[in-house]
Amino acid sequence: MDIDTGATAWVLISAALVLLMVPAVGLFYGGMVRKKNVIATMMLSLTALALGVIQWIIIGYSLAFGSDIGGLIGSLEFLGLNNVSIDGVSGEIPEMLFICFQMMFACLTLAILSSGVVGRIKMSAFLIFGAIWLTVVYAPLAHWAWGGGWAGQLGALDFAGGTVVHISSGFAALALAIVIGKRLGYGNQAMNPHNIPLTLIGGIFLILGWFGFNAGSALAADNLAASAFLVTAVACAAGALTWMALSWKGGKPSSLGFISGAIAGLVGITPAAGFVNVGGALAIGIITAVVCYAALTWRIKKQLDDSLDAWAIHGMGGFAGAILTGVFAVAAIGGASGLIEGNAMQFGIQILDACVAAAYAFGVTFALAWIINKVIGMRVSDDEEYVGLDIAQHGEVVN
Amino acid sequence: MDIDTGATAWVLISAALVLLMVPAVGLFYGGMVRKKNVIATMMLSLTALALGVIQWIIIGYSLAFGSDIGGLIGSLEFLGLNNVSIDGVSGEIPEMLFICFQMMFACLTLAILSSGVVGRIKMSAFLIFGAIWLTVVYAPLAHWAWGGGWAGQLGALDFAGGTVVHISSGFAALALAIVIGKRLGYGNQAMNPHNIPLTLIGGIFLILGWFGFNAGSALAADNLAASAFLVTAVACAAGALTWMALSWKGGKPSSLGFISGAIAGLVGITPAAGFVNVGGALAIGIITAVVCYAALTWRIKKQLDDSLDAWAIHGMGGFAGAILTGVFAVAAIGGASGLIEGNAMQFGIQILDACVAAAYAFGVTFALAWIINKVIGMRVSDDEEYVGLDIAQHGEVVN
Amino acid sequence: MDIDTGATAWVLISAALVLLMVPAVGLFYGGMVRKKNVIATMMLSLTALALGVIQWIIIGYSLAFGSDIGGLIGSLEFLGLNNVSIDGVSGEIPEMLFICFQMMFACLTLAILSSGVVGRIKMSAFLIFGAIWLTVVYAPLAHWAWGGGWAGQLGALDFAGGTVVHISSGFAALALAIVIGKRLGYGNQAMNPHNIPLTLIGGIFLILGWFGFNAGSALAADNLAASAFLVTAVACAAGALTWMALSWKGGKPSSLGFISGAIAGLVGITPAAGFVNVGGALAIGIITAVVCYAALTWRIKKQLDDSLDAWAIHGMGGFAGAILTGVFAVAAIGGASGLIEGNAMQFGIQILDACVAAAYAFGVTFALAWIINKVIGMRVSDDEEYVGLDIAQHGEVVN
Repeated sequence: MDIDTGATAWVLISAALVLLMVPAVGLFYGGMVRKKNVIATMMLSLTALALGVIQWIIIGYSLAFGSDIGGLIGSLEFLGLNNVSIDGVSGEIPEMLFICFQMMFACLTLAILSSGVVGRIKMSAFLIFGAIWLTVVYAPLAHWAWGGGWAGQLGALDFAGGTVVHISSGFAALALAIVIGKRLGYGNQAMNPHNIPLTLIGGIFLILGWFGFNAGSALAADNLAASAFLVTAVACAAGALTWMALSWKGGKPSSLGFISGAIAGLVGITPAAGFVNVGGALAIGIITAVVCYAALTWRIKKQLDDSLDAWAIHGMGGFAGAILTGVFAVAAIGGASGLIEGNAMQFGIQILDACVAAAYAFGVTFALAWIINKVIGMRVSDDEEYVGLDIAQHGEVVN
Repeated sequence: MDIDTGATAWVLISAALVLLMVPAVGLFYGGMVRKKNVIATMMLSLTALALGVIQWIIIGYSLAFGSDIGGLIGSLEFLGLNNVSIDGVSGEIPEMLFICFQMMFACLTLAILSSGVVGRIKMSAFLIFGAIWLTVVYAPLAHWAWGGGWAGQLGALDFAGGTVVHISSGFAALALAIVIGKRLGYGNQAMNPHNIPLTLIGGIFLILGWFGFNAGSALAADNLAASAFLVTAVACAAGALTWMALSWKGGKPSSLGFISGAIAGLVGITPAAGFVNVGGALAIGIITAVVCYAALTWRIKKQLDDSLDAWAIHGMGGFAGAILTGVFAVAAIGGASGLIEGNAMQFGIQILDACVAAAYAFGVTFALAWIINKVIGMRVSDDEEYVGLDIAQHGEVVN
Repeated sequence: MDIDTGATAWVLISAALVLLMVPAVGLFYGGMVRKKNVIATMMLSLTALALGVIQWIIIGYSLAFGSDIGGLIGSLEFLGLNNVSIDGVSGEIPEMLFICFQMMFACLTLAILSSGVVGRIKMSAFLIFGAIWLTVVYAPLAHWAWGGGWAGQLGALDFAGGTVVHISSGFAALALAIVIGKRLGYGNQAMNPHNIPLTLIGGIFLILGWFGFNAGSALAADNLAASAFLVTAVACAAGALTWMALSWKGGKPSSLGFISGAIAGLVGITPAAGFVNVGGALAIGIITAVVCYAALTWRIKKQLDDSLDAWAIHGMGGFAGAILTGVFAVAAIGGASGLIEGNAMQFGIQILDACVAAAYAFGVTFALAWIINKVIGMRVSDDEEYVGLDIAQHGEVVN
């Protein structure tokens, strides 16, 4: 089959937009940390990008999209992009473009995950952890959903990565944060965001990129892509306004709350973007924002130092989104019906898929982090943490 | 008729680029205000985005693009996106994509308008004002130009929103600023821009987005889109260099002047982008920059506190651009002739269209703001204004 | 021949992405200078954009892409875009789009070049220098490679501008820096970067834009564009990780090193992007980073004040990339074989092309700068340099 040039143009730019999200995560989180850790926080995202690209061409793509082995993992046929030729076609687009698009998802997931342990992780340990994590956690999850694995076989719906990207990064961040431990002084000292405009700049580009992320996941420039674009905008807006309303009770709706709500809405609509209509998107945006707001409140109360709330926003938002996809899917959009069209089975499958993904991401990440921490130590010394990772790990300061 | 995938790809990314312009307006204006109002200024643009999306799907799209009623407004057939299906087609692109693209224009217009009253408007009042303004000002203007209303019927040319976006936001900003009143200390205290690099970052993304705004308005990936791209670049460059030359007399051409000139040129070419050639674009860029420079000078002299010059740049730039479209339109580009090809009628229509749009936007906005101000009060207390809206309205500070 | 709408969509957005790179260069370099020169540094890139657009439509495009005269330069047939019509087609895309895409390359090259003399060049002199430089250096180089000139005739490979953009800007920056001289106090005073996050923001958008730059150079939305996208990502990642490894010896891998390595990898892959496979890209990324790292080290030792290392990264990176294209080109990708496929001739042609481009850019720039410096003086006074160009040249300060 020939490629469609319009589809190819759209997925090319979508891949670039998802690429942009990876360092945008660094800006977003970089503005939230203390001044001594800004550069180090950005560097986690930047290295996630570089590391993810190399891991993907060496082994990640093959494990995720090689021929299915028992529903669990892909074969090694594409190791080092072996057997990939420039003439290869994947649906309406070049195979190499599909590889690029998926590559950026892997990088993004690792970048989000890194936020759980800002201000205390060693760069060297992060490189080792990241390379293995992409191989033993991300690649299988991508395979299950999109590469021919059990979840896809079962009919689980995940349009753009609710389980693969958001549940996995969020629950992994929590596991990693628990293994590595809290920041020194957490709970006793104020750890206010150093640079809110930087966070807003990052947030803006996350929002922008998400349209490539979700509408690009149609892998075509067609009515479905347009529909995904529309529901993405609606859920984002609904999430932002919902969080604003929830936090208005305190009197002063913060910009961080607004942008958190926007991202919560985006996370929620991610698995659903190709399956729900505008009404569903509105509901998903509102509900996901409420869920994430509650999760964040609970997380703070429990004094879990998942430092920048990857778990509350991405983990729980992805969890809610995966399940809500099973509620609000309408056959007229993506061919699948959810609970509101009487399909309880889909609802059940979504719950199962979300639970397995969350458990797998949490469990394997916990074990992996525990082992690496034992063997080489993942945490900087107290002195280094005290002076800050910008100087301690990178020898640089923010102005 | 089937969609064209290339056109769809281009309008998808163009919609994303116009979306980006909305928060970019917030960065652009955020850098120009005092340090105590940066976050609040950004928040006006961010909430304009969220609010605009929701308003558009509920009622805005229907009023703008529903079946024409008397040349004045669209019907309610698309209320809540009723009667919109995923299979709908609009020209060469999916109907849902047309909805998204137009949605971003509405959001952007509200964001520009908000700049008139930075540092003193209540967020709650802005939300109420914004929702009504989009309904009673923006939607009719969009309908008149593009939805089958009287201006389009008359043959008025507005390729990408000279009247709909720029005249409307600029004149509305002026009206709103007059109703709400000047900032405390305006004219007595220096109110220097707090962060010029932030303004330049915002300006850069406005410029970038404008190529989606103008060339995307071709609603196709064709020769006309390419021509619109080219003339957009030329007018932008001409405007920037013109403003630089005008302000060089003072000895030191400022970066704010340069970027203001670039945006003036972009505003001027907006209605003309599909109708003029490179020579016309050069003239429009230069003339619009001169007009906006003069308007800004006059506005300062009159001590009107349209705080960030939406009126001078967008209002008067849009006004100039609308009329100049009637001068420089050449049939070889967009099928319409202007004054230079002897078509005085087109010139007259453009003047009429610009005057009506300006009067409508100013008048209705003035009345609306006056009423809302009476009923709920749009302005913060003097104490809140003194400490700044970042703390007073959002409980946050810029580092 | 008709245009392809998918190709047109992709090149439209690619042109916008390359446009974005021009001010992104200003952000990137703006963060590296001292606080007193930030705005002035950004203004060099911004004026390069405006100046380049106007120069290109007046004469640049014609000299670069007019009918070949003796292999050296294009004719004046397109002076002022004469003989260019909206219906013109260039390959699969509108001629006007080809003009826009190429226009952005010219602007970008001038912006990179400006970095050699930050903190001491007069804006007025830069405008004059820039207009002439684009005409006597950039336009011929573009003609040689892509407009029918001797290099293209000879079979030299330059997919996206290794010689035209990078060798030319890098060697020209060095020549200009030598003519204008070192910054006051260079070598004695610390001249630390003022704002690393600003540099990272700029770097992020350079990386993003590069995908339009390289994959857009396919001038189509096809398998070759996808392949170019993939190898661009790989070389970028390889360059970043290589520089990180090289600088790890010092104990603390810096973010500036990481981003420099990423850009070095991107520069290296630029001429090769349509000719090499993933293995080649990996090698090019690694080798180019090593070459640039060594060049930068040498440059510092020699106390040459090419202030922000355009020569080391773009000049030497482009030089390495041009030659490595002659090593790693494989016929299966772009139809040309390099040394690894036994084609020593290609290798020789690449060396010749790179040497001529470097010598021409250095020599002509040196002469041009020398003359302009004699006639009008290119350098600000010592007092102005001391207070900084933001105030001295633009009357503005960074917060």
